[in-house]
Amino acid sequence: MAEPHKIRFGILGCANIARKVSRAILLSNNSTIAAVGSRSLEKATTFAAENGFPKSTKLYGSYEAVIDDDDVDAVYIPLPTSLHLKWATISANRKKHVLIEKPVALNTAELDKILEACESNGVQYMDSTMWMHHPRTMKMNEFLSDLDRFGEIKSIHSVFTYKGDSEFLKNDIRVQPDLDSLGVLGDAGWYCIRAILWSMNYDLPKKVTAIPDPEFNEAGVLLSCSASLTWGDGRSATFYCSFLANHAMDIRVLGSKGDLRVHDFVIPFEEKGASFYTVSGSNWSNLSLGWEPMPSECIVETDLPQEALMAREFSKLVSDIKFEGSKPEMKWVNISRKTQLVIDAVKTSLESGFAAIEL
Amino acid sequence: MAEPHKIRFGILGCANIARKVSRAILLSNNSTIAAVGSRSLEKATTFAAENGFPKSTKLYGSYEAVIDDDDVDAVYIPLPTSLHLKWATISANRKKHVLIEKPVALNTAELDKILEACESNGVQYMDSTMWMHHPRTMKMNEFLSDLDRFGEIKSIHSVFTYKGDSEFLKNDIRVQPDLDSLGVLGDAGWYCIRAILWSMNYDLPKKVTAIPDPEFNEAGVLLSCSASLTWGDGRSATFYCSFLANHAMDIRVLGSKGDLRVHDFVIPFEEKGASFYTVSGSNWSNLSLGWEPMPSECIVETDLPQEALMAREFSKLVSDIKFEGSKPEMKWVNISRKTQLVIDAVKTSLESGFAAIEL
Repeated sequence: MAEPHKIRFGILGCANIARKVSRAILLSNNSTIAAVGSRSLEKATTFAAENGFPKSTKLYGSYEAVIDDDDVDAVYIPLPTSLHLKWATISANRKKHVLIEKPVALNTAELDKILEACESNGVQYMDSTMWMHHPRTMKMNEFLSDLDRFGEIKSIHSVFTYKGDSEFLKNDIRVQPDLDSLGVLGDAGWYCIRAILWSMNYDLPKKVTAIPDPEFNEAGVLLSCSASLTWGDGRSATFYCSFLANHAMDIRVLGSKGDLRVHDFVIPFEEKGASFYTVSGSNWSNLSLGWEPMPSECIVETDLPQEALMAREFSKLVSDIKFEGSKPEMKWVNISRKTQLVIDAVKTSLESGFAAIEL
Repeated sequence: MAEPHKIRFGILGCANIARKVSRAILLSNNSTIAAVGSRSLEKATTFAAENGFPKSTKLYGSYEAVIDDDDVDAVYIPLPTSLHLKWATISANRKKHVLIEKPVALNTAELDKILEACESNGVQYMDSTMWMHHPRTMKMNEFLSDLDRFGEIKSIHSVFTYKGDSEFLKNDIRVQPDLDSLGVLGDAGWYCIRAILWSMNYDLPKKVTAIPDPEFNEAGVLLSCSASLTWGDGRSATFYCSFLANHAMDIRVLGSKGDLRVHDFVIPFEEKGASFYTVSGSNWSNLSLGWEPMPSECIVETDLPQEALMAREFSKLVSDIKFEGSKPEMKWVNISRKTQLVIDAVKTSLESGFAAIEL
């Protein structure tokens, strides 16, 4: 079989997360890095050297230069959220496919402008939500779709927390009101909301209600919050996200016949294998002295880490557009927008005294 | 060492749960069964025979007869909740110590009458919340109290669900409006709320808010519900309880330095040993490709099942009162009342359009 066409990425900026995604682009067999741009050429040069970029990588002292480069098929945008609208739309308008970090925008109105630019230019859009691409996620999805083993979905709880030190809580991009005003909601909360929507097969909730009491830093940026999502028919979900608690990443899904839990859904404990736990048809033992069956662990191995699988999936879609005349895959547009809609609703609820926001 | 004085129990009624607790009373070395009463003598006789009661057990065709028996030190009350007020107060007024099934009362006003009767008669009160007495619970408590390993508490999520069949959902005592009008909230919800209060060292929340959308049976009794509890300082908790989902029993506690989870807290999977999972000081590995340390399992073994340890603890307290002139242990009164207060608040919130109820 012929080597696939390699999609040529331009990296906009030298954010820490770009190290991981650049490695992923180079690990995937259908993508490579063609260019990297930073506000300083020196920074771009150091970044490329430190992260094993190909010798052929073009180094630029601006984002524009990357976007203007005809040898760049797609851009990866790990910039602060407040810069996404500008650089994603410029990129799309220059026919560059867009792989963008979450939170993808400050609000749905901004995101819609990005999506419109992508659509009108016929470029692929995908948010960089890595866990969506782990084979474990597909395996979990099989279980949740199984009417015999899982039944109907009843309740979801999702958690993503990690502990920021005092430096992080004051100075990290994610807690700067002018850079990432969504704070923990746009960062860790993004994953919780995505996990809930994913569990619900992307069925949007009817109501979203923030739970008292969120925590803020001195600049007024969210450091922890919690919310409920309800579907008007007994199905409900809650999530908690925080920069103030030890690492935790759970999805807990309860169904009428079985349930599923995973404790490292955002970033698996280990790269090569990841597990989740299911149980179906639980019964009490005699006198309710115990119960059976016990949950069992399902381990899913992967040759490539989830972020490389993301790069591969994105590059495959771009390749199909570039070489096969395919249309962009709208799935990634739709689920990104739904995630952002729920984020907006949580934010509105937080700003309106924890009112229930109808979607 | 001399054999301890055995506290002599009278069992009021032949509920299914009484089989398990009667076995527990007989397993504990400081308690025995002296009498059992049912509305029919025949039922009491069959029940005693089927459950291996001592030959000396007196069999009665009424609850009164058990309570009037001078050879009975304490009663165990597994009656439907709507009968608790009557029989618990009659028992206390006859100087019988009271071990009572949850939900302990239909509301706090009723519970207060029971507690007043116990207090004025100097008898011990305890609710039959078995998991409180498992050595695992003490071990988990050690972790949660450890400022180095766990830090400060931030968030809790608790779940107790089990699947009732159509017969259960229509005819079980727990879903009859005239017998157990609290439905799933008083049954499974009781455990979730207790778990949250236990995690919080019994610090009552400031606000309790039910989450839409609860589910009801045809008679209007709750079959599933969810709520949030908040403390006004960033600490928050959520729970979900249901008769409509597969068995699940979680406590998930997130702290600033570590976290804890347990997946069979109400009734351990197995009688002889039970486990929970903790992790402290989680870090990202290089490039956030994974994280470490991984959670570790702590297995706690026990010779006696948790319900026998409950019978033993209760009987020890009764024995101290009876033979040592001790006062009743108020801890069990206080935590029972706090649990009921939160149940009442959830109910009020459900009845008032999911309003936040201040405690």
